[in-house]
Amino acid sequence: MWNHSRLLELLKINHPIIQAGMAGGVTTPELVAAVSNAGGLGTLGAGYMAPEDMRKSIQKIKSLTRKSFGVNVFVPERPSATETEISRVNELLKPFRNELGIENETQPEVDESLFDKQLKVLKEEKVPVCSFTFGIPEKAIIHDLKNEGVVLIGTATTVEEAILNEQHGMDAVVAQGSEAGGHRGTFTDSYRQSMIGTMSLIPQVADHVSIPVIAAGGIMDGRGVCASMVLGADGAQLGTAFVTCKESGAKPQHKEAILHTKETETVMTASFSGKPARGIRNAFIERMEGHEPLDYPLQNALTKGIRKEAALQNRPEYMSLWSGQSPRLSRSESAAYMIQSIVSQAKRINS
Amino acid sequence: MWNHSRLLELLKINHPIIQAGMAGGVTTPELVAAVSNAGGLGTLGAGYMAPEDMRKSIQKIKSLTRKSFGVNVFVPERPSATETEISRVNELLKPFRNELGIENETQPEVDESLFDKQLKVLKEEKVPVCSFTFGIPEKAIIHDLKNEGVVLIGTATTVEEAILNEQHGMDAVVAQGSEAGGHRGTFTDSYRQSMIGTMSLIPQVADHVSIPVIAAGGIMDGRGVCASMVLGADGAQLGTAFVTCKESGAKPQHKEAILHTKETETVMTASFSGKPARGIRNAFIERMEGHEPLDYPLQNALTKGIRKEAALQNRPEYMSLWSGQSPRLSRSESAAYMIQSIVSQAKRINS
Repeated sequence: MWNHSRLLELLKINHPIIQAGMAGGVTTPELVAAVSNAGGLGTLGAGYMAPEDMRKSIQKIKSLTRKSFGVNVFVPERPSATETEISRVNELLKPFRNELGIENETQPEVDESLFDKQLKVLKEEKVPVCSFTFGIPEKAIIHDLKNEGVVLIGTATTVEEAILNEQHGMDAVVAQGSEAGGHRGTFTDSYRQSMIGTMSLIPQVADHVSIPVIAAGGIMDGRGVCASMVLGADGAQLGTAFVTCKESGAKPQHKEAILHTKETETVMTASFSGKPARGIRNAFIERMEGHEPLDYPLQNALTKGIRKEAALQNRPEYMSLWSGQSPRLSRSESAAYMIQSIVSQAKRINS
Repeated sequence: MWNHSRLLELLKINHPIIQAGMAGGVTTPELVAAVSNAGGLGTLGAGYMAPEDMRKSIQKIKSLTRKSFGVNVFVPERPSATETEISRVNELLKPFRNELGIENETQPEVDESLFDKQLKVLKEEKVPVCSFTFGIPEKAIIHDLKNEGVVLIGTATTVEEAILNEQHGMDAVVAQGSEAGGHRGTFTDSYRQSMIGTMSLIPQVADHVSIPVIAAGGIMDGRGVCASMVLGADGAQLGTAFVTCKESGAKPQHKEAILHTKETETVMTASFSGKPARGIRNAFIERMEGHEPLDYPLQNALTKGIRKEAALQNRPEYMSLWSGQSPRLSRSESAAYMIQSIVSQAKRINS
């Protein structure tokens, strides 16, 4: 099963292991290249990246590996917020900013043409694989990228979303279970209805689409990767497992938090970005609970300074410590060693 | 892996498939015996059963099978509610009762010695396996049952709860993932912190206990059972999959609802019993949302008449339609056929 996956052919990889394209600086070119060099698919999390930073990272990746790799981008939305709403949230964030000694009034700045610029770089740099989160791009974009030979991966959190991804021409789909750390990829139903556990989601999705399915959510080792494939997936995407890797660009406090967290200590919160995401419960999440955030990505723009400064001042209680529900399985290893461990474990399980 | 499980030896079964001891009339003696005769472990859900009904059911099971079987009981709590609280909930339930044309004032009656009486029957009838939900019984009870040769299975929803089960002498532990239908077995943390997906829960539990682990939550077929074992479990417990079986005593409306439900249509609610449980969203759940229920099992006692009458009047919108997150995988088959399908599918996966 392991070696005959059509996903390996599609993505031109040796092992059905995909490193999630986590945004926020986690996916350094070194991490992406290390994963690809080890036979998996490294993915640059370019969701929030400025086009020129993205280009530099892609060029760096290409200098570090000749293997296939991916870039993840966020399908944009048209958020809106009134001055009153922005003031209300700025008011809520004031105590955090005061404590950290940073400026109080922030205007959320969102570049509405970011996605188009990112896609241009993607094509110019001939990125082999592109994955999308938060929706499905327009027909013309999909057509264009496919014409350029880019392999496209969508994200789904329900059976319906997986079917939509297939109908719109995605070459493969990530089925993201509720265990997953970071943002929910949900783009149809409300997020609460879309919190389907990986054990439930994978076989139900696999029964309803014919494109390759990539399982995500709670998968950290060879057991999880093999179990995903037994459930009907063609491969697995790991996020949290790579955050604590040596090559990961995650903040040291973020890595430490995951390495010392229990499975009961993560929660869903929309307070950091405006979209629900799973992270380790801390003071920021607790104090913002019950307060409506701005639409994504406006909330993200407003909290950015706090998160950045909190990391600098070593205040993990105000950082976004994204983590899935399997932190007890996290390790601090090189990406290559991790992939080798998964492959060995899978061989033992399949023997 | 499939045939060498220590769980098979412990429970004296041929296949690592356990039918969950669901309460509320689902687990007829015919269902329990059919599962055991097919090589799995049938379990009588005796949680709410009066001792003499329980005895009759056990005797009936013994007349239908000579194989091993289990009985599930609920570890009791000492609930309390003031007259005011009871009136408040009765007031909330009034519109439902009016619509159904049943009496309005109900006093929650709870037999505080039920558990002791149930254990007495269990011992007298020499039940081979006893499983517990909602906690771990006192030391003396565990000691006593083990002396009688009863194999004991506990329920855990977190790693800590699994460790407690092992420390208290349970012979095996069910690790119940958040996908599971019906009641959460949580007895330490708040239920929200204990909503860990099966993909995350099983390997983390397996790494922390040495007793056999039985995976539960979202498992409906051979894929799920095999995936559980790949994750480190010794077997799997299936609930929802057996509700729609021919031999199940579930109300026809309950069976129909599961067979036609999507994975996004279940929710957690404490409105029926006072304890959080996963069921198909309906009018009762929606209208009770935001209203604090009485402690379990007082709330259960208050809503009992409504659920019973709703079934008689064919009003599924007021029934407790327990279901896990994999309803798209449900089938209407005999229990023997289902177990045979799981075994065949497992053989194909493992070959």
